[in-house]
Formats: sequence, structure tokens, C-alpha cells
Amino acid sequence: MEVEFMLDSSEDKKRATENILRQTREASRVDVHKEEDHLWSLASGKLCEQIKKDGKNLGKGILKVNSFINHRVDVGLVDLCGHALADCFKNRDVTLILTAQTSGVLPAQACARYLERPMIFAREKKPITISESYQSQSRSHTRRMDVSLFVAKEFMGPSDRVLIVDDFLASGTTAVALLDIVRQAGATCLGFGFLVEKEFEKGRELLIKALKEGKEDDEKGREEEIRIVCLANVVALDGEEGGEIRLGGGKKS
Amino acid sequence: MEVEFMLDSSEDKKRATENILRQTREASRVDVHKEEDHLWSLASGKLCEQIKKDGKNLGKGILKVNSFINHRVDVGLVDLCGHALADCFKNRDVTLILTAQTSGVLPAQACARYLERPMIFAREKKPITISESYQSQSRSHTRRMDVSLFVAKEFMGPSDRVLIVDDFLASGTTAVALLDIVRQAGATCLGFGFLVEKEFEKGRELLIKALKEGKEDDEKGREEEIRIVCLANVVALDGEEGGEIRLGGGKKS
Repeated sequence: MEVEFMLDSSEDKKRATENILRQTREASRVDVHKEEDHLWSLASGKLCEQIKKDGKNLGKGILKVNSFINHRVDVGLVDLCGHALADCFKNRDVTLILTAQTSGVLPAQACARYLERPMIFAREKKPITISESYQSQSRSHTRRMDVSLFVAKEFMGPSDRVLIVDDFLASGTTAVALLDIVRQAGATCLGFGFLVEKEFEKGRELLIKALKEGKEDDEKGREEEIRIVCLANVVALDGEEGGEIRLGGGKKS
Repeated sequence: MEVEFMLDSSEDKKRATENILRQTREASRVDVHKEEDHLWSLASGKLCEQIKKDGKNLGKGILKVNSFINHRVDVGLVDLCGHALADCFKNRDVTLILTAQTSGVLPAQACARYLERPMIFAREKKPITISESYQSQSRSHTRRMDVSLFVAKEFMGPSDRVLIVDDFLASGTTAVALLDIVRQAGATCLGFGFLVEKEFEKGRELLIKALKEGKEDDEKGREEEIRIVCLANVVALDGEEGGEIRLGGGKKS
């Protein structure tokens, strides 16, 4: 069975196709940019509210948010957050959104939809469908294991301007691994957008150190402002299981 | 730092918040439902076109689509496809969309956004944040390994009406494992939505067999029509690497 009959038929169908595509494009461009700060506050406020309501401190620095972020997903909330992250980088000519599997895919897909750009998720195993790849090492604390991240070389190159998006900035090793992959490709990293930062794990410090080290070798990087934004900031998780979740608002600057 | 200041302030901010939320809701309801069949044809046509253009037959029955589906992601295409899948089940009172990590998350997130329902992705490892879980076995052919799928018991129960979404229907073992999890929860499975079916792997037959077997024990299931839809159908992958990809259009009935 051939499919061409669906692709190229009468003028009527063409017009209807164009209508749907136009409507889909417009749906991604809700006119809230004029209220940019308000969009950020709304997304950040709703995410913080949800963490206060349904987040659980499991002790040992572990925050359970799998009722709305990384197992059962509140898709509307993630979409709003992705929109707010996209908004921070909308004037930066992003060509590509990069994340790591699995739960990074959620905010990255939402963000990529609003920026109308492709998204790549770095894979933890190199499937047989990938031949040559960039590779870097990360560490998963919730799973207590080292992981390798792979990105196929054919999909990222020197002309790419990359926004890195993930659900969490915790120890920072995943963000640094993704930055390392962007650098291996000779591409430009424009910044980082996270749903939740766990400030007490000091990932931001590790990331800033890695950014500084890279800058010495990288002419292009020197000229670009690199922003690290998060919509919610866990300042501390007190004591053992059930302890207080001390929460700050997002960091946009 | 408290976050309440962002959530509940002046009347002006409340109005602006309501405006943004209304616009976001409306953005999910592009008025294409009156052209339902056209939306399906458009999504199916664009997906088939992309497979013809960028899909690669790697031989041994393996189809490489990682330039637009499961590594680098054409988010706009996936969004359109998720919309078309959602449209098939929009009158079925879906309460939950279920998928398996990782690449199932992409169409499932898009579909869930249009249905305005939460999405659960079954995890391949049971993280320490999940206590009691449903569990079932699947098999990954591209990775040549058996995988266990876990869903936390707290997130699915007898009142749930579940739509299962995945990127591929190949051998069918993942779809059957997800169906098994829905049955363990005592929930109702309403149907299955896939981006791509590989007809020659006969997953649909395995799935229909599993559905029939379940029906004998399941009073509720007898009354519900269960649809299995796919947007593109790979009829055959000829010969070795580089062979023809024989493609049919989607199956909606």
C-alpha cells in the first residue's frame, strides 16, 4: 500500500493541511511573552507548590517527586515549566535541546516544542542503531551507579547552539557530562535549564567550575553568556525520612 | 524563603495568571476535531513520509529511525502524532496514559497533553523511590535483552481507564507487559496507540491473543471495545542493510 495518496492530493486537502499546520504553530506561540516574568513566576510557583504538597523527603538527601515528575507525570505542569525554560532562551538562536534519558526527556520535550527545535536525549546504552558517538561519564545517586552517556556524532556539530535541559541539577555530574559532549562536538553551549535544583548537593558549583575550565580553551565560549536557571530550589532536606523540605523559589538570573 | 508571594498576590496578578492558564488550555485544543480524519491522515502521512526519507533498513529486521524518533527527536512531528492518537480516544474517558521508558515517553507525553491526563512511564529498574510495584517482563530486540517493567502501585487502581501508548509495536512483548500491569491493577485497558507498527514481527497477533485470554476472566473487559491503532505500518524490511522499507499507511480501525 502506497502512502502518497495522503500526501499530495487535491487543492482542498492542501489548504486544510496548511490550516492545521498554521494552527499547530500558533498553538506553540501563546502570547505570554509580553508577560515573561509572570510566566516564569507562575511556572516556578506552581512547581514549588506541588513539591510542598506532594514531594517527600526520604532521608539521606533523597527527594521523592515521582507522583508528578519522574514516574507519574503531571504533563500540564511539565509543559508550563518547559514553556518558562524556553522563554529564558528564546532570543539565543538555540538550534538543539540536549538532555539525558529518561526523566530529562519530559521537560526537554516541552521546552523543545516551544522553541520549535529538535531535541536529543543522550542514551545510557549505545544501541546497535548508533555507530560513531560522543561519550561521557555521569553518576546516578538514586540508582547508586556510574552511567555512560552516548550521543550519535551525526546529530551534533560545530554549528550547533545547544540548550541543556534536565529535571534535576543535583551533584551536577550529568550536566557536566552533557556539557562535555557539547564540547566534543565543537558546538556552543548556551545554558542550562532545570526543573529542580538541589542546592545542598552543590552541582551548580561543579558546573560553574567546568564552564570556567572550558572557557580557557574555547574562543567562542568567551563571548557567550551562559545562564543556569532552575524553577525550584531545594535548599536543604532536613534529617531523616519525613523531615522538612526547605524550598526556595527558582533562580532565573 | 517562602514561595507563597508568587502564588497569591494582587487581583492584577490573579487575572494575568488566569489569562495564561486559559491561553495554555486553548493551545491544547486546536480546532481540528471537526476534521478528525484529516488530522489522522496528516499525522500518518507526515510520519510515513519521514520514514521513507530518513528511515534506514539496517538488515535483520531492524529499522533505524533515530534521526527523528528515538534519539534525535522531531518534536513537532511527535506532537502532531500524539495529537492524532489522542483524537482516537477522546470520547473514551481515559484517566491515565501508560508507556514504557524511554522512547515511549515521547508520543505518550504528547498524547497526554492533548487528553489533559497524567502519564505514567513504566521503569526498567525499580528506583529506591518506588516501594510496592506491579511488575511484568518484556524483551528488547534492539538491545537483545529481557527487561522488567515496574509501575508503583500507588499510581494505578481499579477505577483507572488506561490508554497504552508506545513508539513501536514490534514483537508485542512490551505492549503485552503493559497490559499485564493494567490487569494487575484491576484497571480497564481502553486501547493501544503506536507511532510505528512492524507488521512482519506479528506483535498485533500476540497482543490480540493476550487480550482474548484476559477477556475470559474479566467481566469489565467484555463490554469495552479495545482499539489498536498505529500511524505507520512497516509491512516488510527487505533483505540485508539498505534493502527496501515496505510501508503501509496507518491502521485506525
